[in-house]
Parts: sequence; C-alpha cells; structure tokens
Amino acid sequence: MTQPLRVTVWNEFVHERAKPFVQKLYPDGIHAVLADALREQLGADVEVRTATLDEPEHGLTEEVLGQTDVLTWWGHTAHDRVNDAIVDRVQRRVLEGMGLIALHSAHASKIFTKLMGTGCMLRWREAGERERLWVVAPSHPIASGLTHEYFELARTEMYGEFFDIPQPEELIFISWFEGGEVFRSGCTFRRGRGRIFYFRPGHETYPIYYDSNVRRVIGNAVRWAAPTGATYYGEGRNIPEPLSPIAGRGPAEHD
Amino acid sequence: MTQPLRVTVWNEFVHERAKPFVQKLYPDGIHAVLADALREQLGADVEVRTATLDEPEHGLTEEVLGQTDVLTWWGHTAHDRVNDAIVDRVQRRVLEGMGLIALHSAHASKIFTKLMGTGCMLRWREAGERERLWVVAPSHPIASGLTHEYFELARTEMYGEFFDIPQPEELIFISWFEGGEVFRSGCTFRRGRGRIFYFRPGHETYPIYYDSNVRRVIGNAVRWAAPTGATYYGEGRNIPEPLSPIAGRGPAEHD
Amino acid sequence: MTQPLRVTVWNEFVHERAKPFVQKLYPDGIHAVLADALREQLGADVEVRTATLDEPEHGLTEEVLGQTDVLTWWGHTAHDRVNDAIVDRVQRRVLEGMGLIALHSAHASKIFTKLMGTGCMLRWREAGERERLWVVAPSHPIASGLTHEYFELARTEMYGEFFDIPQPEELIFISWFEGGEVFRSGCTFRRGRGRIFYFRPGHETYPIYYDSNVRRVIGNAVRWAAPTGATYYGEGRNIPEPLSPIAGRGPAEHD
Amino acid sequence: MTQPLRVTVWNEFVHERAKPFVQKLYPDGIHAVLADALREQLGADVEVRTATLDEPEHGLTEEVLGQTDVLTWWGHTAHDRVNDAIVDRVQRRVLEGMGLIALHSAHASKIFTKLMGTGCMLRWREAGERERLWVVAPSHPIASGLTHEYFELARTEMYGEFFDIPQPEELIFISWFEGGEVFRSGCTFRRGRGRIFYFRPGHETYPIYYDSNVRRVIGNAVRWAAPTGATYYGEGRNIPEPLSPIAGRGPAEHD
Repeated sequence: MTQPLRVTVWNEFVHERAKPFVQKLYPDGIHAVLADALREQLGADVEVRTATLDEPEHGLTEEVLGQTDVLTWWGHTAHDRVNDAIVDRVQRRVLEGMGLIALHSAHASKIFTKLMGTGCMLRWREAGERERLWVVAPSHPIASGLTHEYFELARTEMYGEFFDIPQPEELIFISWFEGGEVFRSGCTFRRGRGRIFYFRPGHETYPIYYDSNVRRVIGNAVRWAAPTGATYYGEGRNIPEPLSPIAGRGPAEHD
Repeated sequence: MTQPLRVTVWNEFVHERAKPFVQKLYPDGIHAVLADALREQLGADVEVRTATLDEPEHGLTEEVLGQTDVLTWWGHTAHDRVNDAIVDRVQRRVLEGMGLIALHSAHASKIFTKLMGTGCMLRWREAGERERLWVVAPSHPIASGLTHEYFELARTEMYGEFFDIPQPEELIFISWFEGGEVFRSGCTFRRGRGRIFYFRPGHETYPIYYDSNVRRVIGNAVRWAAPTGATYYGEGRNIPEPLSPIAGRGPAEHD
Repeated sequence: MTQPLRVTVWNEFVHERAKPFVQKLYPDGIHAVLADALREQLGADVEVRTATLDEPEHGLTEEVLGQTDVLTWWGHTAHDRVNDAIVDRVQRRVLEGMGLIALHSAHASKIFTKLMGTGCMLRWREAGERERLWVVAPSHPIASGLTHEYFELARTEMYGEFFDIPQPEELIFISWFEGGEVFRSGCTFRRGRGRIFYFRPGHETYPIYYDSNVRRVIGNAVRWAAPTGATYYGEGRNIPEPLSPIAGRGPAEHD
Repeated sequence: MTQPLRVTVWNEFVHERAKPFVQKLYPDGIHAVLADALREQLGADVEVRTATLDEPEHGLTEEVLGQTDVLTWWGHTAHDRVNDAIVDRVQRRVLEGMGLIALHSAHASKIFTKLMGTGCMLRWREAGERERLWVVAPSHPIASGLTHEYFELARTEMYGEFFDIPQPEELIFISWFEGGEVFRSGCTFRRGRGRIFYFRPGHETYPIYYDSNVRRVIGNAVRWAAPTGATYYGEGRNIPEPLSPIAGRGPAEHD
C-alpha cells in the first residue's frame, strides 16, 4: 500500500483529567496511547491524528472525517454530550466506507448503538479480575500474529452476556472472566460500505492499552477496517429504463 | 398454541384515499386486505387488529403495543409523518420481543432503518414487469408450504440491488426482474429479543396482497416472528458479586 | 400440530455396558434417558424410538430413517465402528429435511464431521469442574422457557475452544468453565433442507441428561429441527427451456 | 507483503483436449489462462504454478501443497477421477490455512462438496444467454476495483437456484440470467483456518476467463484467501491441568 491509512483516534477525554489514578495511567489521555500503539503496529502505513469531545465539533468536522479512513472511538461517561448531528455525520461516513473501531465502553456510545439498532447493554463488574480472551476465528486477519490460543489480561473490568447486539457477522474473541461470565469480545459488522469492529478490552482504570496483544489486535483491526477501494455504488434511485427488454407491460393498474 | 397470536397490522393509509386506481384495488386500505390474509392463513391462531397513521399516536399506544405479539408495517409516502417518539416505542417493543414484518416500501420507514442502522435504500422502477421470487432457503419455516422452486408476480414495481441493509441473518428469497435486476426479497434479522422479516412484494398499484403465495409467506412470517417465550433476560446492570470466586483482586489501580 | 414428531434417539451404547459407574448412571443406556426426556418435554407431540450401534444397520435402516423427522446422536468411543454407508444414508436424509441433534462427543462423529466439512476437534479435560452456560440468543426457540440468563452444571467434563467447526449460523449458548476455558456450546447449522443443532452437555460420567435445563433445551431443539413442510425442491437438473425469453443466443462457440 | 503469494492453479484439463471448440478458446488449457490472469492482476505479488489431473498425484503432492498458499480449482467432467486420498490431503491443507478458490463447475468437485457437507447441486442450461452479476457486498475486498453496480457476461451457461450449499458467510455476487433464473455467484466460507471462495463464471465453451471483470475478481479472491499468518492453534487435545484453579472437584462419579 503506497498511501498510508489515515486514522482518527477519538476519545471523550474526561476520566483522564478528572481522576488522579486514571491520569497516572494515561497522563496524555487514552487517545495518545492508542495513537502510539497504531504507530507502533502500522509504522509508515499509517497517519494518525486524534480528536476529543471538547474540541469544536468534537474534532470531527466534515473535513477531518472526509480525510479519515478509519475512526477509533473511546467513550464512557459522556456519551450524552456527543452532538446528534455529529453522530449522524459519522454514521454517514461509515455507510460511505469509513472503518469504525469501537473500543470497550463505546458499546453504549451513540454512534455504535445507532449503527447496531439495539441497546448494546451488558452486565459489568469492576473487581480487577482476570480475563482470558479465546480466539474462535484463528484465521481472521484481526487475530493475525497472535501466538497462542488465548491471551490474558491480569486485571480488568468484567463485561458479561447478554450483550444486546445483533449477531456479529464474524465472532473472533470470546472472553472468560474469573468471576464467572463470558463475553463476545471481538465482533465484526458491516454497515453500508463501512466495516466495524467492536473490541472489548480497555477500561480506564487498568493499563489495558499498554498490553502488547491488545495493541496488536487494534492494529490488525484498523488494517482490516480500511476502505477497500469500493467505487460509489449509488444511493437508491429510480431506474426508469430497464437494462433488459420487458416483453409487455400490459395495462398498468394505475393508468 | 392455546393463546392466539395478537397481530397489529399498521398502514399509513394515504395512497388508498388519494389515488382512485389504488382505491379500486384496496377500497378499505391495504391493512384491511392484510388483516384478511392473516385470518385466512392463521385462522383461530390469530387475533388481528389494524392501526393507521391518522389515529391518535398512529394507533400504536403503549397499550396496543403491549398487547401486540407481531406488528406488520406498510408505509411509503408518509414515512416522515411518523412521530419519532412512536418509532422509539416500537423499537423498544421489538427489542423486548415483539416481531416485526416490514413490507415492501417499509424498507425506508423510520422503524426499519433505525433497527438496521443503515440507509436501506435501493433502486426501483415502476414498469409493471414480471418478478420471479426464487426460494434459496427451502427449509425455512417462512417458505413452508410453497409448492415450487419459485413463484411469480406477473406485474410489479422493481426493486434492485444494491439494497443497503446489513447482511441478512437468513436470506430466503431472491427476486429476478424481467428488466434485468435482482433483489434480496426475503430477509431475516434479530434485534434484542425481537425477530424481523423484510418481505419485498407489495406495491400499492398492483394487486399483490391478493396473491396466494404472498399471503402464505406473510402468514408464515408472522408465525415465525412470534415471541418465543423468552423470559426477561435483563437490561445491562452491575453485578458486584462474582458468581465464582476471584482468587485475588490485587492492588486496584484506582485505590 | 396434529401429527406427532417422529424422533429416533441413536446411541452407540458402549460405555454403559462396559463401565460400572456409567452403568449406575444410565442403567438402560443414555438413549433410554434421552427418550424419556423427550417424552417428558414434548408429550403427545412426539413419538420416540431408539437405535444403537449393535443393531443391524445400527438400527438406522432406510425404513427407520424414512420415518424419522429428527435424529439425535450420541457417540464417543466407537465413532469408527459406524459404517460409512449408513453415514451416507443419514447425510442424505438430513439434506432431504430430517433434523439432526448432535450431542456432546458427537462432535467427532462421522456424520457430524461429514456435514460440517471440518475436523470438529476441541480441547477437553475431565476434572468434574463447574460449567455455566450463558444464553447469547435469548429469543431463539431453542432457549425458550429457560428462566435465567444462564444455567449451571455442577460437575462436567470441559470442552474448550478452538472448536474446529464452521461459524455457526446462530450461536445460542457459550459455556464458561471453572478451569478457564470457554466453548460455543449451542450452535445451529442448515445443510440442504435439514436443520442441525450441536449441544455440548452430556458426558457419560456425570448425570447430565437428568438435568432439567438440559432436557428442556433438547426438547426445544427437537421441535426446532423438525421438517418445515418444505416440498421437494429438486436435485440439480438441466432446464433446457428458459422460463423467460432469450433475445438472441448468437453464434454459440460450441457449434 | 514481501513474500509473493504462492498459487497453484489446478485444472482437470479434459475438455480442452477433447473438444475442438474448447481447444480454440483455451489452446493451452484453462489453467494457462487463469495463471496469466493471476500474473496480470497480482504481478510481483504472486508466484503461479499449475497442476492437472493427469500428472502424478494430480500434481498435488505433499510438497506442492505444502508450498501453496492458495489453490484454485477447475473441474467439470472428471470429478470422479480425482483420487480420494488427494482430496483428503487438499482438505487437510485447507483446514491448516490454505485458501481455496472453487471456480464454476467445481461446485460439484469432491473437494468442494467435502468442505461444504452438502450436495452442492444446482439447475443449469447451456443456451448462451446473458448474465448480469450484481454486487451485493460492495465493500468486500473481493469486489474491490469493480467500477459499477454490476458487470455482464454476454453469453454464458446458466446456473440457477436452488444451489445446495450451506448459507454463505458472505454473499458478494448474485447473478441475473436472461432466461429467468438467479444464482448466488460469489460466496465465501471459512473451514478450519482456511478461506474458501466460490465463483460461478467460467464455462469452458465461452471465453469467460478472458473477461477483465472476471479476472479482477479472481485476483482479488486469491489475495483475500491468502493465509493470514495464523500461528498453529492446535488440534484437539487433552488439557489435564486447568488454567485457573478448580475449587473442589467433589466425588467424581467415575471413582
């Protein structure tokens, strides 16, 4: 690929400024660490910029989105503060082909629920327990380069089923939690011309985005979600002239 | 089944009052013909009521929806006049388990696009051409009782690909059109606890809903979309106590 | 349904005669307990017969299969002793519309692997650990009547991912195991006109088939897998005459 | 990708030597034209070799398959002459990660039907009619670079539904035929670690494999089906030691 992928890393950037122990983990914000991870994983194949809630238009202007191949989304406490018009704009771009990586608590973001059509709620527990992510689609590009049947996070927030999403087109990871739950942690969807990946890991109170396996998966996912060169296939429209001849239209009822 | 299925047939009921040739085909409205079709197909297994756009709350009060197992939806020219709050209410009921049958131009209705997350647009042509619906999932209950590999409609409006929906969970019918297009005409989806079927046939200017195969499919679909006795599986919620013991939570970063 | 479903419960019936502790659990064979479970769950809606490996043609004659709507399969230690011609016969019946419920170690049976096209292997451990089956498709008829988000088996053999099956069309249960694994424990597939359900629980050394939730799921699954009244859609065949006119065939290359 | 993809193009190579009008179209065999197409599409990213039925072990020795990333398959009249042991070998390689592109009448090949688990039959007609392939997954990499909603083949053999395959994981093309049928013409499947694409066009009596859109799709498909760097995820095996502690195993029934 000669053109680098243009990725925008979006973060609500609230916890990191409000809570000291989050600030310690992510002093420049989760977005800064995610941007680093993408540069580490994709090198010269990627150009990363970041955007946050407090910027004008949340940093997601038409111009920025028009230059974004893949958008990653992290939000948790401020979903309601995201402007509906911006959400519509992001959705339109996804339908046009922009990839979207929804991370962790982005399950409840306006943009993700809007693209899914469901509530996207789940069970949770913040108890610092162990998580083991099992690979159930080992040949999927998003799992590429993982060296084992599973990988572990020593301490995480738990997300458990029932996760109220449409059945994923491809299920890539299932999480096991020490406290007794399971979760569909890596799920792909397509909407319009855009490709979407939901990836569970990432609570702000644990150093999840420094984990090498998590970073690898996010890098793979960005590559996978990149636009595929689909030409414009047209919005719905009237096609008055048939492509092939119609034998006899007969007396139309509406004449 | 001892309890009859409670079906609400919704119709915007505009064309039938505005256009004489539609009135001739459907003098009491498309909803009246659909209600008859369901009684014919399901007999004592069904209780049908109808609702239309002009009724208070479009006839879809909390009470009506609370007593509806399956809702069928027909709309075309007045999608925008459907109140957003009612759409939200219908969506909530679908997520809780109510079935939804979206008919023909309901592809562009607010409720269908909201549940899909996409634009749901398509190509069309109104030329009275022949349509042949091929069964590609012959053992699906929705195709039950069809006696041939396909069935035909002598004159219809054309709907053609690309149809901007998420990939259906089950694809049951593919239409061939005389003028050269194809279309995914019978598609199932699940959202929350609800089951959704999109079925293409049905333009108001042709007597489609008098066709015996179309009526059979709609009857099958209503049966298929009925709630399955799922108990309430709960909205997302915090589960502070683990189900199984957590060995050691360690020093939480947030202490 | 006026006609009762005709179910054949197949069991290799080896462990129960060879191992005293299995004999104690299933004195008349696993098939006898499964047959009881189906009668308990489906009552007058079902007619159950059993068949075992040692019978002539393994009890699966053309006549028996011709009168079987749904076949349940339990095998473990004697997969290789099942005659290939009988496997072909069962496969043919599934493609014609007979339902198949593959239980527990039937994952490695000839009939299941033949229908899947993959090795169907998995990880396992026999340590009497706890299993918790989470419902991830709460509105699926196979989960009908379960009263909670999950159900538990106090002591089971573990089956863990990677489970080498094609991605299920519908994933209904995911198991959590105390020892750290997860498993796709309830999976649907369609092949030809037949519907297939794989259900994990069932090791011969634990009283799994006496569990009320397990029995309920198997009963639901048999109902779900029943033939749907699909008429015969024909094997592949030449259709020399087009259904619609072909404008001009031009000079065929092969003349 | 620094390493070129290693592709083996397999052809039964019977018609081209037996029928003059096929020989005229494909004087060096269909495999030669397909090999050229891949070199044209993928350039330095690919190393192509060919193999045919009459070679020892059909040209598909352990060594050749061990060095093959993606195998394309064309067969029609001689499926039965392919040795079962070689078919097993190819299947094993697919499960290990080798991609497989099944072309046209390969729908009925031993390797394809074995991986599908179904009969894979269909309806057909050889009448030189027009085919129009509609793109129903415009953002799929296999459709990359196509410049229109559909592409046409002026004269082809017809393949029609019902096509007895498992529901594809992704449906990419649907064909419209002048004579009245439709067909799922581009379908993806995963089996084990391998990715499979079925692509309909290609009858030996028409110059299908010289068509630029067909060549583009086959090139895209080879790229898509390439192994993804999945490490070895292990065959099924016993895991006697749990990954996480098991609280109490209790009195095992089998002690």
